[in-house]
Amino acid sequence: MAYRALTEQEAVEYVRNLPNLFATGATLASHEIGDGNLNLVFHIRDEEGGKSVIVKQALPYARVVGESWPLTLDRARIEAEALQIQYKLVPELVPHVYHYDAELALTVMEDLSDHIIMRKGLIAKNRYPLFAKHIGRFLAHTLFYTSDIGAHPYEKKALVGSFINPELCKITEDLVFTDPYEDASTNNFNPLIRPEVEDIWHNAPLKREIAKLKYGFLTRAEALLHGDLHTGSIFVTETSTKVIDPEFAYYGPLGFDIGAVFANLLLNYAAQHGLAKNDEERESYRAYLLETVEDVWSEFVSQFVQLWHKQAKERSAHVEGFWQDYVKNVLQDAVGYAGCKMLRRVIGLAGVADLNTIESDEVRAEAERLALAIGQALILERTQVAEATDITAIVNKTVGLVHS
Amino acid sequence: MAYRALTEQEAVEYVRNLPNLFATGATLASHEIGDGNLNLVFHIRDEEGGKSVIVKQALPYARVVGESWPLTLDRARIEAEALQIQYKLVPELVPHVYHYDAELALTVMEDLSDHIIMRKGLIAKNRYPLFAKHIGRFLAHTLFYTSDIGAHPYEKKALVGSFINPELCKITEDLVFTDPYEDASTNNFNPLIRPEVEDIWHNAPLKREIAKLKYGFLTRAEALLHGDLHTGSIFVTETSTKVIDPEFAYYGPLGFDIGAVFANLLLNYAAQHGLAKNDEERESYRAYLLETVEDVWSEFVSQFVQLWHKQAKERSAHVEGFWQDYVKNVLQDAVGYAGCKMLRRVIGLAGVADLNTIESDEVRAEAERLALAIGQALILERTQVAEATDITAIVNKTVGLVHS
Repeated sequence: MAYRALTEQEAVEYVRNLPNLFATGATLASHEIGDGNLNLVFHIRDEEGGKSVIVKQALPYARVVGESWPLTLDRARIEAEALQIQYKLVPELVPHVYHYDAELALTVMEDLSDHIIMRKGLIAKNRYPLFAKHIGRFLAHTLFYTSDIGAHPYEKKALVGSFINPELCKITEDLVFTDPYEDASTNNFNPLIRPEVEDIWHNAPLKREIAKLKYGFLTRAEALLHGDLHTGSIFVTETSTKVIDPEFAYYGPLGFDIGAVFANLLLNYAAQHGLAKNDEERESYRAYLLETVEDVWSEFVSQFVQLWHKQAKERSAHVEGFWQDYVKNVLQDAVGYAGCKMLRRVIGLAGVADLNTIESDEVRAEAERLALAIGQALILERTQVAEATDITAIVNKTVGLVHS
Repeated sequence: MAYRALTEQEAVEYVRNLPNLFATGATLASHEIGDGNLNLVFHIRDEEGGKSVIVKQALPYARVVGESWPLTLDRARIEAEALQIQYKLVPELVPHVYHYDAELALTVMEDLSDHIIMRKGLIAKNRYPLFAKHIGRFLAHTLFYTSDIGAHPYEKKALVGSFINPELCKITEDLVFTDPYEDASTNNFNPLIRPEVEDIWHNAPLKREIAKLKYGFLTRAEALLHGDLHTGSIFVTETSTKVIDPEFAYYGPLGFDIGAVFANLLLNYAAQHGLAKNDEERESYRAYLLETVEDVWSEFVSQFVQLWHKQAKERSAHVEGFWQDYVKNVLQDAVGYAGCKMLRRVIGLAGVADLNTIESDEVRAEAERLALAIGQALILERTQVAEATDITAIVNKTVGLVHS
């Protein structure tokens, strides 16, 4: 079937014809529930049996902007293939793909409606005691087994070729690494923080570090990344974590995915200035968030290093001292990328609900200033970071400076 | 035509049928002249008109080892495409490709028989006053225009995909970065230097640095490299330089190509211990070689930086201080990769004629010890290198230590 965007009814007919999904003659209800920027998302449910699936179809343009911003349908292939690779490595942490249709740029996958988007959970100040363990495992396994350390060199190079993803990478290159640091038309920030934003535009040492981090994003084909691992790409319950939406997947530096997790926890940390009802609640939740940052790193690193020792295919992996240098570099990268992702969410095109749900412009501006200060400190001080507690120290020091 | 290895006579018939090469009925003489490891090379000459061409055909195995080591024919495509890209950028510095045949894995190209292989020229202690300027230009233009700084991001990513070259990269990964640093069966060294080689096998800090350099080779997709830029891949006369044989081309770190040039000049430097007729000749030629290393770098860097300022497509290129950091990293990489390439030529499978033409085992061992000492110093001290004169200083210091 040639590509066309499906209607709710067409989506029902499509899944009805797939084998082994729904009983013949089942009454299927379909609702388009996409709230993202780039795709149609149909929720299709058997009204009697209760079984449900998600049909995700890529649109040939960025939905947030409209048809004037065309965007490759190849991202549906990238997403389906990335999900399938991740499923093989950590089946409990990603949705199961039932079917992928290249012509329609469409994937039928497991429905996760019993989970909530983690960003909403953090805004509601929920705590997810297993999240760090789960995401640490996701990061360790998906990054290790697709890296030069854990994959055969031919397999790795074939994957690099399959996941060349120019258009979606360009979005990151522009919106994360370039536009926010100059007076670009895509920027979209609270007018009250213009002085702080202009300081960033004129901060030469900061821009130099960001240029280096961008160059790493452009060139360092280290592992198959999720590519957009913010808390809006993670579904959670108290006991389950599912990573979704890997359409930005490509071969890049490991620290980019880990940094995305850090950044979004720390954006919520900054937003607690306006989200928390009182000082006690704020301090308590912030302590939870910082602890989670540290736990994500320690879970990642312990599982990654264990895989390294037991499963490495690269012969040089066992050279004395190499893994320690490697892991330290990943942490420093993660800290730098976290900083870029914090800045861009405050200054650039796409904000985050954590901050945007703060109604008062003044209160939100205070939270945004804190996010900018933390982001800058992470970028500028990343080469001094040796363990995750150093991130907590940078955040605490920055909060102290901003409040003094 | 399905692939088969051509005979001399079939090669003649093949080129006779190509348009615009030879006059109808010309008397063509064909000689297979390949002295490399992987290919057939036919020299075909019009005995009256004098015009000649080279027909290079890839064999489906490594000629040096035999049919037991199969090797992809795709390398003929890689070589032909790399030559065509280089020809667009620096037409005067590479052979002109007249015709490429994918089925036969065969390229018909300009005959450069009026040039000699630079390695032979250096063994004969010839001087090439324009070489540094030429190779600096080759490096600056081919590396800049295929990098993220000089190419559009979509064009660069498409090139990365075209030049995924797993089998030939694996040869480098094994023979340059792994086998020489352990007791591998492929190694092939002078028994007299076994103590020095064993010291390297047990030198943990050295192996750690080599592991990092290998990791850079595996992951850093910075520019379209020649991939094997030793002095056996360079044809020279007093006034002309032509770079040939880019079948190892792939996207890697810029410093790898530059380091290959440094390494092969410095291998000849070490070999002068046995090649020079007397002290005066040795010191004079060694001074020429060190000067050439410095000139290659200064030609590269001045042309590369000029292109950066005038032709950069990457928006972050003009961030204050970025190009200086970038260039310093390229130099340090080049120094590190030069060190690896020196060590592997002494310890590993493929030696160099500069050393191997020294008849006396004892005299050759002295030259090899010097090459090993310089190679190790380059690897271990590379992060202190800030300009090319620091390379000269490392070499002079090492010569002093070895001789004292």
